[in-house]
Amino acid sequence: MNFTIQNVLIATHDAYTTVDVQVVDGKITAIAPHLDVVGAAFDGTNKLLLPGFINAHTHSSEMWQRGAIPPLPLELWLAELYEFAPLDLEKVYLSALGTAVETLLSGGTSVVDHLVLIPGQEVETIATATRAYREVGIRAFIAPLIQDESLTAGIPSGESQQTHEPYFRSTVATLEFIEEVVKQFHRPDEGVSILVAPTGIQLCSDALFTGCIELSDRYNLCRHSHLLETKAQEKLAQEKYGCTAVEHLKRIGYLGDRTSLAHCVWLSDADIAILAKTQSTVVHNPLSNLRLGSGIAPILKYRQAGVNVTFGCDGASSNDSQDLLEAIKIGSILHNITDLDYQHWITPRQAVEMATLGGAKGLNMGDKLGSLSVGKQADLVLYDLKNLSLLPRTDPIGLLVLGRPTNVVDSAWVSGKQIVANGKVNTINVENLQQELFNHSQWDTQRQSQTVAQIEAHYRTVMGLPTRDLGYS
Amino acid sequence: MNFTIQNVLIATHDAYTTVDVQVVDGKITAIAPHLDVVGAAFDGTNKLLLPGFINAHTHSSEMWQRGAIPPLPLELWLAELYEFAPLDLEKVYLSALGTAVETLLSGGTSVVDHLVLIPGQEVETIATATRAYREVGIRAFIAPLIQDESLTAGIPSGESQQTHEPYFRSTVATLEFIEEVVKQFHRPDEGVSILVAPTGIQLCSDALFTGCIELSDRYNLCRHSHLLETKAQEKLAQEKYGCTAVEHLKRIGYLGDRTSLAHCVWLSDADIAILAKTQSTVVHNPLSNLRLGSGIAPILKYRQAGVNVTFGCDGASSNDSQDLLEAIKIGSILHNITDLDYQHWITPRQAVEMATLGGAKGLNMGDKLGSLSVGKQADLVLYDLKNLSLLPRTDPIGLLVLGRPTNVVDSAWVSGKQIVANGKVNTINVENLQQELFNHSQWDTQRQSQTVAQIEAHYRTVMGLPTRDLGYS
Repeated sequence: MNFTIQNVLIATHDAYTTVDVQVVDGKITAIAPHLDVVGAAFDGTNKLLLPGFINAHTHSSEMWQRGAIPPLPLELWLAELYEFAPLDLEKVYLSALGTAVETLLSGGTSVVDHLVLIPGQEVETIATATRAYREVGIRAFIAPLIQDESLTAGIPSGESQQTHEPYFRSTVATLEFIEEVVKQFHRPDEGVSILVAPTGIQLCSDALFTGCIELSDRYNLCRHSHLLETKAQEKLAQEKYGCTAVEHLKRIGYLGDRTSLAHCVWLSDADIAILAKTQSTVVHNPLSNLRLGSGIAPILKYRQAGVNVTFGCDGASSNDSQDLLEAIKIGSILHNITDLDYQHWITPRQAVEMATLGGAKGLNMGDKLGSLSVGKQADLVLYDLKNLSLLPRTDPIGLLVLGRPTNVVDSAWVSGKQIVANGKVNTINVENLQQELFNHSQWDTQRQSQTVAQIEAHYRTVMGLPTRDLGYS
Repeated sequence: MNFTIQNVLIATHDAYTTVDVQVVDGKITAIAPHLDVVGAAFDGTNKLLLPGFINAHTHSSEMWQRGAIPPLPLELWLAELYEFAPLDLEKVYLSALGTAVETLLSGGTSVVDHLVLIPGQEVETIATATRAYREVGIRAFIAPLIQDESLTAGIPSGESQQTHEPYFRSTVATLEFIEEVVKQFHRPDEGVSILVAPTGIQLCSDALFTGCIELSDRYNLCRHSHLLETKAQEKLAQEKYGCTAVEHLKRIGYLGDRTSLAHCVWLSDADIAILAKTQSTVVHNPLSNLRLGSGIAPILKYRQAGVNVTFGCDGASSNDSQDLLEAIKIGSILHNITDLDYQHWITPRQAVEMATLGGAKGLNMGDKLGSLSVGKQADLVLYDLKNLSLLPRTDPIGLLVLGRPTNVVDSAWVSGKQIVANGKVNTINVENLQQELFNHSQWDTQRQSQTVAQIEAHYRTVMGLPTRDLGYS
């Protein structure tokens, strides 16, 4: 669809200007005042146009447990998450829709879904999420979450001897179905890309990583993993490799300008230099890192070292939302307490650039997405500046990033297709979605995780916490 | 007005139950299943009832500059704030309305407004804010912000000799008008209370503090101040008193169970013990503390020491919103990174208690407000659990505190009077308010603060920051 947005506010280098924006065949074709109207006309008066944000790391099906998991660190939280995640395809479908809707209504037009797979229905899980994202029309980067070690292997052994069950699926079988999935679903030109996405060093063998590198090279796929989310993982990397996780990933060739790494909380200065040199991207998930007590990722250091940084919501059980504007706000202001020198702090405009162009670069699409530039894909979001949460009028981007904007997305387009209009997603029936989410769930607040109870004592010992008083079980 | 909410979910000790709640003459008179309907009936099906939160520290007129001030530490931020704050009474009125509306729509039924006064129109400023809060119907605690030293005195001298202009109004004159204001506007039974509120040790003499203590004792007023928000204030206290600010405030008798103290970021363990012993209340403003780079208040230590803690949004220029649910969320999860032991982390239920009963205690109203108890004031909020942001169904309070609830407040009552119905404030015309906020403002993004330029070099020297490259001016 072709269209022209008239009289809309856009950001210039350090101010704003009012222009018209023309979109033809899904791409931005002109940005200037007083253009001829091509296609449909949209009134941009008192509205701000930005490129769509990229929700650069999430796990859509965690939506089923948001609000449910008590305050626990990642390793125990994960045990509870998996214990209560006997997903079915219907739930995968609904939570992908929900993730897409919340991302869109908070300014995102792309989502990277590090998708948890139903054992035995791996391909079907991916097919289902793909269908949901295609229906909504959001740009989807589906990163099937794979591993080849079992969950308990993700906790350091410490002084103890730990043995772990072998993982139920072989490394070879995993790589085979990923290749099959790439052939079936990787359609970047249609807005659906597949990424290779070994979950992280804590649960993946070198064979899995190198297999993913080969697939990535053969099919031109981006790479996505968790990296050093917790202090426990930092310990584990030393146990496993005798060096840092970053040094190891560099050695095996996993890092590069198509590699995006979620969290990156526990990196050394030498590790940071490696990320800069390899042009890897850090996906900052500030809310999850707080919620799970993982720590504050050294984002100001990354920026000073020249590492590309962008934002993710992370899964909705560790956030517990999918609101990109919240992630961008907290992911910006959180770091002011880490450096007394305010000249290093992230400005609202820098935050927007991180959330747009930063995300695009991490997905090897910096030349196609992430800025209002003629020739780029029309992934656009129009914000209503007359909304109460953006009043009184001051600096529109300051209000958007530092405030708590609510109901502010008026319209959104992906490749020029309008998928939000008048503040509502118009490609699916959101009221039906709400009813389905309601019907498939219940207020259930007294569950107790057996898995957490089983591993808690070992976790506390390894992490140097008092073990006498086990609070959770 | 008398009414009965039927079939509503409320929290029990560790679960939920469905009950009816009766309200007669502004107080809760019965909580039990299957009550007779007294007065109007409200359907509570699929809704959660909580006591209203207390926005325990804000500055309403800062709304006029939200989103506008660049990332700066408190001392420089304040210089910019005051330079561009030539307020008039109309703006005071509109921003008090706006603050009340945003507080209500995020679950708050009380607001503590540490109100910035227009010089020469001090009493009129307070009259105007009072009028706004009475019109909306929110419970208001108006804390006129007073000082008797000029702004530059708030920055430590360090090695240098600093002289400061005398403050334009004498200490005696200040205390006189506060007494006048108490006589005119302090009507706790009508929902409007006046607090004595010297801004803090950084800009107040001992004479002002002790004058406020006398007024507090004579008229039974609560006391409210900022306390040790920044590292600079910690230095200043040592310069000024040769001891910590808390030790000094204890010595002069300012602390006590009617004293609430905003921020409390830079306290020593000995200071914390003093707050516990004096039963003073800490008002935690997490978003402001991040935005201004002030630091992380040691909230888990306060809780372990038995200090009462509650939440505030702080003024909307340092937040830049008035959303209590956001402050409660970040004010809970932020501390998980300060203590490896997750058994100390704040649970969603504890956060709700801090935001309700914690706030009430700090205002000396723990016996009248802050819980769903027969005999207490009916300051109530009803949340719509079918809202998309609270789905799928898991733990309602977990979703409310850890999620990003949007448009979830269905109804709110203050002393039994309904002021939010069907998700909208029904006592004032909010669309008119939006239009007025729009009309009284403009998109103005290229202002430069002269005051910041003047004091920046000194600030950087005192704080040990490199002075060569002044980024702001």
